[in-house]
Amino acid sequence: MLLAYHFTNQHSPFILQSQKSIEVCYTPAQYELYRGGYDVIVVIDVLRATSAMTTALHYGVEKIIPVASVSEAEAYKAKGFTVGAERDGQVVEGFDFGNSPYVYIDQDMRGKTIVLTTTNGTKAIDIAKNDGQVVIGCLNNLDYLCDWLIKQHKNTLILASGWKDKVNLEDTICAGAIVDQLLDSKKFIASEDSTVAAKFLFKSAQNNLWSFLRASSHRRRLIHLKIQKDVKYCLTLNTVPCIPILRDGALVKLHE
Amino acid sequence: MLLAYHFTNQHSPFILQSQKSIEVCYTPAQYELYRGGYDVIVVIDVLRATSAMTTALHYGVEKIIPVASVSEAEAYKAKGFTVGAERDGQVVEGFDFGNSPYVYIDQDMRGKTIVLTTTNGTKAIDIAKNDGQVVIGCLNNLDYLCDWLIKQHKNTLILASGWKDKVNLEDTICAGAIVDQLLDSKKFIASEDSTVAAKFLFKSAQNNLWSFLRASSHRRRLIHLKIQKDVKYCLTLNTVPCIPILRDGALVKLHE
Repeated sequence: MLLAYHFTNQHSPFILQSQKSIEVCYTPAQYELYRGGYDVIVVIDVLRATSAMTTALHYGVEKIIPVASVSEAEAYKAKGFTVGAERDGQVVEGFDFGNSPYVYIDQDMRGKTIVLTTTNGTKAIDIAKNDGQVVIGCLNNLDYLCDWLIKQHKNTLILASGWKDKVNLEDTICAGAIVDQLLDSKKFIASEDSTVAAKFLFKSAQNNLWSFLRASSHRRRLIHLKIQKDVKYCLTLNTVPCIPILRDGALVKLHE
Repeated sequence: MLLAYHFTNQHSPFILQSQKSIEVCYTPAQYELYRGGYDVIVVIDVLRATSAMTTALHYGVEKIIPVASVSEAEAYKAKGFTVGAERDGQVVEGFDFGNSPYVYIDQDMRGKTIVLTTTNGTKAIDIAKNDGQVVIGCLNNLDYLCDWLIKQHKNTLILASGWKDKVNLEDTICAGAIVDQLLDSKKFIASEDSTVAAKFLFKSAQNNLWSFLRASSHRRRLIHLKIQKDVKYCLTLNTVPCIPILRDGALVKLHE
């Protein structure tokens, strides 16, 4: 990777340090253009899949098996698994729950293995799972995740789930917030315009994040699904100190 | 289209007015997700194809035939046409010029028909040409184009050319500048997150546009191609009051 000198302290003013890449891909549809060369892939689906996954593992769910299709989810259900399925913001018929984070803050969920399929988020996990270490990001675990990423210091791609292959604002802003912290550490460098744009979007939204992001959910009519409480939960920063990490096809809580 | 009430003046405080769509697609690769329902499609490739096209027609080139591939360009050359071809920022071997706007500010170009293929811009024109009225946008014709689009008052899609199917900053910011003016007119409405993000990017770059955009060209190493003069030309607002419009497969100057 690129080499850069950094001024550190008066005793050893220059340390030759290897900078790692931090880049952002806005949607799974664009992933082929970014694939390769990343050791860590952070999947984001702020409304609501990755917020729900992070919440679930933090509050005691043992394991989440993300699956891309409803038919895979049905197959697991037939085998007796506890299965959630969401499409277009709603629970799929025949399933008991979708991607509301509140579902997982429940005594009954503790220690369980959950199977989950969602409109955008599980698709993003599926396409990236063989290309690097997949971890889960959201606004709820923002600072905790950034600290870990900086400590890892590996080439990192943020894969936003978007909305049906189009860019969405809340994932891009969450990605921009991560980029901002990683660039601030001076241990990372960004070279894609998508990454720089995400950072600038976060910066311009930073002081008014809630109304900025709520407008996005309004535009996608999520608000009509009576999930205002979920939206507010998902758009709140740093409430859940937990990083879901993909191991052997299942998300588990990272223990450091 | 959507209907909205607007407060206009004290004599007729409310006028029921039909608002038209203004949306932004960041790259040709995402065009399929946006295709359909747009009467006007504005193709943007700020560095440098659409800036060059606008300049050419303003300074007297009669007609530009955009072609998507180098082989098509070669076929025209064999027939005796004046042909430009650019790939990766450089003139393709065997051709006399590429997409530098300065090439077209030349007495010898007046009255001519030019055939042109470029890395990103002509591809964008090609995929949109049958879906609506294609016109050409850039920073050089920004206000002039916006005035015309507002006067037309039709459902409008801005198709940014991007950089090899990835989003690029200068096209997105130019798109955001157009969106900003059209929304300000109150005659248009935006509902895609890509459109809102482009507008916010423009707003955050607005006061420092030159250094913001120059950084983008640096990252793409255009600066190493010794085209600094071109980059500066293309990033300068409102220098060329001309709108190229696609008619019968060729771009001509719009005469109002």
